[in-house]
Amino acid sequence: LRVGTLLSLLLATSSQAADNASSVQMLTSQCAACHGVKGLSTLPHAPNLAGQPVQYLDEQLKLYRSGKRQNETMNLMAKPLNDQQIAAIAAWYNAIQIQLAP
Amino acid sequence: LRVGTLLSLLLATSSQAADNASSVQMLTSQCAACHGVKGLSTLPHAPNLAGQPVQYLDEQLKLYRSGKRQNETMNLMAKPLNDQQIAAIAAWYNAIQIQLAP
Repeated sequence: LRVGTLLSLLLATSSQAADNASSVQMLTSQCAACHGVKGLSTLPHAPNLAGQPVQYLDEQLKLYRSGKRQNETMNLMAKPLNDQQIAAIAAWYNAIQIQLAP
Repeated sequence: LRVGTLLSLLLATSSQAADNASSVQMLTSQCAACHGVKGLSTLPHAPNLAGQPVQYLDEQLKLYRSGKRQNETMNLMAKPLNDQQIAAIAAWYNAIQIQLAP
């Protein structure tokens, strides 16, 4: 029974991790149109997000969500996000490493 | 006389270009403490500026200058800048090329 409980816990955790991974993919796919598939901007008014500090991304998404930072598109995009989703998006873009071009 | 006029114009232009170059260096040296010497952030709450779209940088500095985008440090930094200085700073950071790390 204990092994069974542990197993189902492990399965639940791993399936939740997979859900989180697929949901962050779904979330960031909405950002890609302007910010690029890998977080390198495709539009003159959209910033690169790749490699930005995680705290900065987290804060700015929350400022967009509350409307304290104003941008028509971003206020709409951020409105439905909860704190966990914002943290996941911030971590996802932060993890894309950038460097100066040689 | 014509050659002399041309020469002094050229000298004036070149010295003005040098002035502009040195003034953008002076301006961006104030940004470096948080945004890094090459525009790669040194602080968790400061974004990377290297390689950002020039229009984005120009707009955001103007939003900071007017106070429409709120950040205590950036509102102070942007307040004394004129449009030309903002354009020069935006061009300077945009010119630092970045790429995804391999």
